[in-house]
Amino acid sequence: MITTDAETRARALYDALAAGNADALADLLDPDVVVEPTAGLPGDLGEVRHGRDAAIQGFWWAIGRRYAARAEPERFLPTDDGALVVLGRYRGTARDGGGELDAAFAHVLRFAADGRIAALTQYTDSTAWGEALPAPDRPRAGEREMRRLSYTVDSHGVATIRLVRPKAGNAIDPRFTEDLDEATFRAAEDPAVRAVLLCADGPRFCVGGDLAVLGELEPAALPVVLRQMIDTYHQALERLTEIDAPVVAAVRGAAAGGGLGLLHVSDVVVIDEAASLAIGYAALGLVADGLNTWYLPRTVGLRRAQELFLLNRPFSGAEAVAWGLATEAVPADDVDERGRALAERLAAGPTRAFGRMKRLLRESHNTALPVQARAEITAMTDAAADEDAAAGVPAFRAGQRPVFHGR
Amino acid sequence: MITTDAETRARALYDALAAGNADALADLLDPDVVVEPTAGLPGDLGEVRHGRDAAIQGFWWAIGRRYAARAEPERFLPTDDGALVVLGRYRGTARDGGGELDAAFAHVLRFAADGRIAALTQYTDSTAWGEALPAPDRPRAGEREMRRLSYTVDSHGVATIRLVRPKAGNAIDPRFTEDLDEATFRAAEDPAVRAVLLCADGPRFCVGGDLAVLGELEPAALPVVLRQMIDTYHQALERLTEIDAPVVAAVRGAAAGGGLGLLHVSDVVVIDEAASLAIGYAALGLVADGLNTWYLPRTVGLRRAQELFLLNRPFSGAEAVAWGLATEAVPADDVDERGRALAERLAAGPTRAFGRMKRLLRESHNTALPVQARAEITAMTDAAADEDAAAGVPAFRAGQRPVFHGR
Amino acid sequence: MITTDAETRARALYDALAAGNADALADLLDPDVVVEPTAGLPGDLGEVRHGRDAAIQGFWWAIGRRYAARAEPERFLPTDDGALVVLGRYRGTARDGGGELDAAFAHVLRFAADGRIAALTQYTDSTAWGEALPAPDRPRAGEREMRRLSYTVDSHGVATIRLVRPKAGNAIDPRFTEDLDEATFRAAEDPAVRAVLLCADGPRFCVGGDLAVLGELEPAALPVVLRQMIDTYHQALERLTEIDAPVVAAVRGAAAGGGLGLLHVSDVVVIDEAASLAIGYAALGLVADGLNTWYLPRTVGLRRAQELFLLNRPFSGAEAVAWGLATEAVPADDVDERGRALAERLAAGPTRAFGRMKRLLRESHNTALPVQARAEITAMTDAAADEDAAAGVPAFRAGQRPVFHGR
Repeated sequence: MITTDAETRARALYDALAAGNADALADLLDPDVVVEPTAGLPGDLGEVRHGRDAAIQGFWWAIGRRYAARAEPERFLPTDDGALVVLGRYRGTARDGGGELDAAFAHVLRFAADGRIAALTQYTDSTAWGEALPAPDRPRAGEREMRRLSYTVDSHGVATIRLVRPKAGNAIDPRFTEDLDEATFRAAEDPAVRAVLLCADGPRFCVGGDLAVLGELEPAALPVVLRQMIDTYHQALERLTEIDAPVVAAVRGAAAGGGLGLLHVSDVVVIDEAASLAIGYAALGLVADGLNTWYLPRTVGLRRAQELFLLNRPFSGAEAVAWGLATEAVPADDVDERGRALAERLAAGPTRAFGRMKRLLRESHNTALPVQARAEITAMTDAAADEDAAAGVPAFRAGQRPVFHGR
Repeated sequence: MITTDAETRARALYDALAAGNADALADLLDPDVVVEPTAGLPGDLGEVRHGRDAAIQGFWWAIGRRYAARAEPERFLPTDDGALVVLGRYRGTARDGGGELDAAFAHVLRFAADGRIAALTQYTDSTAWGEALPAPDRPRAGEREMRRLSYTVDSHGVATIRLVRPKAGNAIDPRFTEDLDEATFRAAEDPAVRAVLLCADGPRFCVGGDLAVLGELEPAALPVVLRQMIDTYHQALERLTEIDAPVVAAVRGAAAGGGLGLLHVSDVVVIDEAASLAIGYAALGLVADGLNTWYLPRTVGLRRAQELFLLNRPFSGAEAVAWGLATEAVPADDVDERGRALAERLAAGPTRAFGRMKRLLRESHNTALPVQARAEITAMTDAAADEDAAAGVPAFRAGQRPVFHGR
Repeated sequence: MITTDAETRARALYDALAAGNADALADLLDPDVVVEPTAGLPGDLGEVRHGRDAAIQGFWWAIGRRYAARAEPERFLPTDDGALVVLGRYRGTARDGGGELDAAFAHVLRFAADGRIAALTQYTDSTAWGEALPAPDRPRAGEREMRRLSYTVDSHGVATIRLVRPKAGNAIDPRFTEDLDEATFRAAEDPAVRAVLLCADGPRFCVGGDLAVLGELEPAALPVVLRQMIDTYHQALERLTEIDAPVVAAVRGAAAGGGLGLLHVSDVVVIDEAASLAIGYAALGLVADGLNTWYLPRTVGLRRAQELFLLNRPFSGAEAVAWGLATEAVPADDVDERGRALAERLAAGPTRAFGRMKRLLRESHNTALPVQARAEITAMTDAAADEDAAAGVPAFRAGQRPVFHGR
């Protein structure tokens, strides 16, 4: 292989791709090249490919069968250890239906000793790729497969979202955020869901951002990957604050950084009294995500939030309750059972009234008193027209326990 | 009596009223008909009438002597148990002065076995009725009679608003909200008032909405009645936050639901340490009123507010202080005395400076730091031009206790 | 001297000054007249002058050498004890460079038994006077001399702002606010500063407004002096909230009123557990400054803030921590050492990421959830492009302690 510089060799790659020149492409790739696409790409485009042929046939030509598109590089950023980060955009259309594709990418290229490309990692907005396809081909929200989470709904109307990657401490990687988006979408769309339970396998609830991903990135790729992950993560978290069904988190072991967002957006948090918690960003030189900066001043107060952020003070589940971050601390062994019991109890409540309470409490923080006063009147009279209130008020008056149907 | 359906008989009623046809009217009414008007109607229009003649002469024809108006029904809503809710508007003018009357109504009609009307309960906006009359005939704010509350001002400048329906747990019914509007209007208009004390007769401070009223309503009337009550209640509560005079609540026994609003708008809350408190709405399928959703996140924090709303956790006076909902917990027997002592002490303070503090604290929540910084400067320099500050600063400097006159 | 009334004699003073008539001026002044100018006037104009000649030559004619300006009186306010407050404006230009001077003034004139002027105290906006001068003559921000505070930067990047008027309890007078403006300006402009430590000499950290100044003022001058002081004070305090470097306060002994502002704008507050604290304004008939009304509801909650403001409840350092006003309580003897240790630790942190956290936490209070969610993404991806994050994330991943350079 030629010994031109990395940028020249990368440009040759994009030229070969644009020309569909398999020979030129093969010549640029190490025989053992590894291509790691963005996991959420449609069909099997997201699968890792090992070796020249698999990369060309299973990835690039497979893209070409679905899209008339090209990768347009814009910036070439060499790294200290000889890798190259290429930033640019995919532009084109889907072959079927003609839907437009316009998606930013970051590629990280690593080179063999002879200068050939030994590895390519692709970061791109997989949603944009999906949406360019005609509807039947798209991975439809509500029907996407999940790997980091499981989702079930029981006969009480409790939707359980369970974090199922315990070996990694249920760390947040791009796939996690996409799965949470899927799970919360299902809960939001299903009228049978009257409460949501967030829980986790293993001894650590959620340790925050996956350093096995973030710590291996080229510096130039770190902002790109963070933006994509956090965009999706925040969308999923906000959805939980917007649905009528109350959300219960059952938190055992550790929770940190962005993982605390799952606690924040819950309405009730049952926590392992010995849980080990921390904000963590300061130790990495990072800042905040997971809505930590919105919730912490509102739950633990400004002074404590400053301590947790700047001094990165670790704290326990018992402290989390004392400060107002969690609702109730119990022994680790009782967390899951207690969380489920509360979720079942809430699932038997006046779901629409709960939704109105959730909205009023969420909006309260940014609303002047007279505006909130009016919002209470509207919510109250709207609720009074619901079936649950129509039954509940007279039942209560008559000394009976009302039965609510969430209508 | 004819056996047409309820709506046909109701329409006949409105036709007979519009025509002023006493015979037709009498034929539609059960001999023992009970008419229960909105209590706050002008003069004696608000009194309950028993029997056909009393209803026709004392209610309908008495209305006709004061107003050239008609009841225009718009919706007829049959209920499960055979009653009929009629929604519509009164439209017309006052005979004296020609002031316009345009007021929504809900009528709940119940029928005897033979189809005649056995009961009519009227819900309408009594303020609109009063305002249509020429000024001298109107029940003037500041001079209206109160039944649920008493109001007195002592020589210290302490206005005492006392809840005086202990048998009903001082529950909030429409009359209660009108009385609170009256009492707070008086306190706001009287320059001699330099502190307000809220207290209650009996072992329960205020149990919230009166289920003896709300639990008996037809479902279709519930939103109408709630809207009228809460509109008036919020207006009265907000007035307490806007007056210069500090407000002290002395709370013994129970407080719940909307009744907590009286605590929220107070500047100082002395509470029975064993008081029994709850939010309560979730048990009824309702949501919130009494400004609970504005204050609770700001006093007890978001997490606790969620627990109180969604899980409806009962709590004690001691917990209310620990969480920041009340100022000070004392034994039940000491509540009234301690509340009065604090009110007297505040009544001897710099009333206008207190008013400026109240406004700054209230507005702080929705104001960015630089805006609040400027508001402090304005409030401070305005206060420095008050007589109390002019005397207070040098007195303090000289080691004396300043005497404030609230000017 | 003539026995006309005070206003006539004061008008004669302004006429004599406008005419530059030294004889008329001398005739109006008591031989032992004391002129006390605003301390921050340029050059030596701010020095107190004793006696007729010193007043005329060292103050008025010295002004005339630098400015072509006149004092235009607008209101004459006699006081109970025979003094006269004159409110008006200085209008004119600087002789060198022609910069415009337009500055409000309050003069307090006191008279001898024969009617001559025995004392004149001048309050005016010294910054406006400085800014009218050509740049080289101005006291430049960053190079102004300080008297109430000292400012040093050590090799760790810790800027120490020390209050050095212990005999006066480090009370806040106009000079204090100008010095804090200077010290914070220096910290903000110096890229080597990576943490700020606020500490104080003597047994009282800061007792609030200097009553030796405020308590001696004529009533009409009180609002004028307060406005000038607070304007400058707030500007300095807000600057501390805006810089990237974390701010640590080490608070021994007493703190009250506006002095609490130094605690509020700090990110970490180490406090003497036995410290004696109070809001204090209510005792004087005043309201609030030092950003107390913005911070207290956000740190100690609305209910406690009302108690501290209206009932002026004194509280201890230990209570300040329990309530959320301070971060950590330690014995008095350990306060300074602990404060310095935390400042040094923070100075070794990711300074820019800290700045982003500070801004997110500050802005959180007035921001709706979706807006804050987006602000987190922007701050996070911006930080991820900083050198500190680029080094910190992989270091952490590799199990090493990252070394941050504040870039």
